[in-house]
Amino acid sequence: MSEKSTVTTDNNSACTDGCVKLPNPHLSTLDHDALFHIQVPLHDTDTLKDFSKIKFVCIGGTPGRMKLLAQKLARELNLTKCQDNSKEDNFDYAFTTERYSGFKVGPVFCVNHGIGQPSVAVVLHEVFKLLQAAGCSNVTLIRIGTCGGIGLEPGTTVITSGVLTAGFKEVYVTSALGRPLELPVKVDPELVREISSCASDNGNLDLKVKVGKTFCAEDFYQSQGRLDGSFCDYSKEDQICFLNKLQSSGVCNIEMESAAVLALAHKVQIRAAVICVVIVNRLKCDLPSLTAEEMSQIESYPLELVTRYIKRHFSKGD
Amino acid sequence: MSEKSTVTTDNNSACTDGCVKLPNPHLSTLDHDALFHIQVPLHDTDTLKDFSKIKFVCIGGTPGRMKLLAQKLARELNLTKCQDNSKEDNFDYAFTTERYSGFKVGPVFCVNHGIGQPSVAVVLHEVFKLLQAAGCSNVTLIRIGTCGGIGLEPGTTVITSGVLTAGFKEVYVTSALGRPLELPVKVDPELVREISSCASDNGNLDLKVKVGKTFCAEDFYQSQGRLDGSFCDYSKEDQICFLNKLQSSGVCNIEMESAAVLALAHKVQIRAAVICVVIVNRLKCDLPSLTAEEMSQIESYPLELVTRYIKRHFSKGD
Repeated sequence: MSEKSTVTTDNNSACTDGCVKLPNPHLSTLDHDALFHIQVPLHDTDTLKDFSKIKFVCIGGTPGRMKLLAQKLARELNLTKCQDNSKEDNFDYAFTTERYSGFKVGPVFCVNHGIGQPSVAVVLHEVFKLLQAAGCSNVTLIRIGTCGGIGLEPGTTVITSGVLTAGFKEVYVTSALGRPLELPVKVDPELVREISSCASDNGNLDLKVKVGKTFCAEDFYQSQGRLDGSFCDYSKEDQICFLNKLQSSGVCNIEMESAAVLALAHKVQIRAAVICVVIVNRLKCDLPSLTAEEMSQIESYPLELVTRYIKRHFSKGD
Repeated sequence: MSEKSTVTTDNNSACTDGCVKLPNPHLSTLDHDALFHIQVPLHDTDTLKDFSKIKFVCIGGTPGRMKLLAQKLARELNLTKCQDNSKEDNFDYAFTTERYSGFKVGPVFCVNHGIGQPSVAVVLHEVFKLLQAAGCSNVTLIRIGTCGGIGLEPGTTVITSGVLTAGFKEVYVTSALGRPLELPVKVDPELVREISSCASDNGNLDLKVKVGKTFCAEDFYQSQGRLDGSFCDYSKEDQICFLNKLQSSGVCNIEMESAAVLALAHKVQIRAAVICVVIVNRLKCDLPSLTAEEMSQIESYPLELVTRYIKRHFSKGD
């Protein structure tokens, strides 16, 4: 699995057996280490043993959606220990802090990441450290979320084939030691194909899936070309020009975390994908207008797709 | 960066009577408008009437801390309607979504903002729109939070006198229409002085307050010069050099939201301040090592300082 992740650059430590091996020489020299935000114990052997079998990490914005996914996976993967949804503690392991919540069901760990790249970066750093401490191997990271569509109607599920950020560059912009830092964003085309091929795995529901580029924005308003933020320095014509430029660049959707997810995963040689469902067609309007029921239904599509993919993976006996 | 996007000053609409008047000409022409993330109704006249008297918006990372602040303010401002802490509904108005929660007590609205500048930008855009819709005037925005200290010990409360971001520039870096956008970060020195002068308002607890610059980072690890992230591309010596450079630049603390808060507030002409308490002295170590009790105690200091400031404001009959 891991040899397929397209690691083309970098000072990353090579890891031929697929084990998670983080490119941070300092970790082995620390007097004390801990996961400050997620508070999963890094030195508890039982916990680490439990996590050692993790093959999938699923992340998404809200705790509720990730809990729903964990419950769905428990049912569909026949993880009997986790199947009693009436119980709050129906997971192998769960944590809840004021920032992040996580739910482990068998070989899958579902964690919420909040809004925006800094928020997802914090939790990914700590999840990656947990995976290494637990001795995990051949792990796949999948973000599920919602997005604005570019010419796509609500309910279409987009699998990201590439990411553009401000300046129309394929980089995640962050900083280190006070200096701007650009990390390459890499997509695993094979993983995209595998997930995409699950769209019709269940006869009852053919998911409408589109593979295309994602624009990753810094906020929900000006960065996404909306007119309805608290301030707006451009005209309706400027907006149309921006959205058309996205479309002509092959961009299918806009969200706020994909660049960080794919760049950070690439940096630590974990293969990763981003799956987001459209909640508004931005070529028609700025404000999503779905009812709560419609939103709930539509938000279930990426959960369904990722569940099919994970189910297929384990039915193959991988 | 395109010349169109370099908004460095202030096409803000002037508003001489202190009313919130947002610099977005499109808002008055929208067919339909709503606050997508906070879900406070924008067209309910009773709600807007209730919000029209807001004079302070307090924001902080977690819902729990903002609820604590709202309860404390209710007690100390003698807002009897809100004083029964045993009740869940002891606020004038409260909302809870999976993203953000808010608690209104009299003239103060306390809202959580999550982690990082994108997350705080989303909620601020919507809170500013609410303030305008409600016809609010002379509003002050205060962020409370935690931070790493530069040469300051845990428990010291830092009031931000200026913000540096990556590249050691005093700007909030975001984007608009696919182009990088730098917005100026402005501090109100008078507001900083007013808040600072409240440090000894209560004989029982002299708060240790420091006024100084803040470095606003993109993540908790490399952006803040830590060695204990999932990857690290620099040496211990590089780290020391970075932290020393911060100190010689007058930086007292590091956090993740100040630039966006002060730039966005300035953009809409709302005065704003940032108050963060130190939870680790970064010149000594990377990982905070406070007990849960110590953390809880220390996190109460910015709540205490902002409460004293708001209390003093209303005791003056402003």
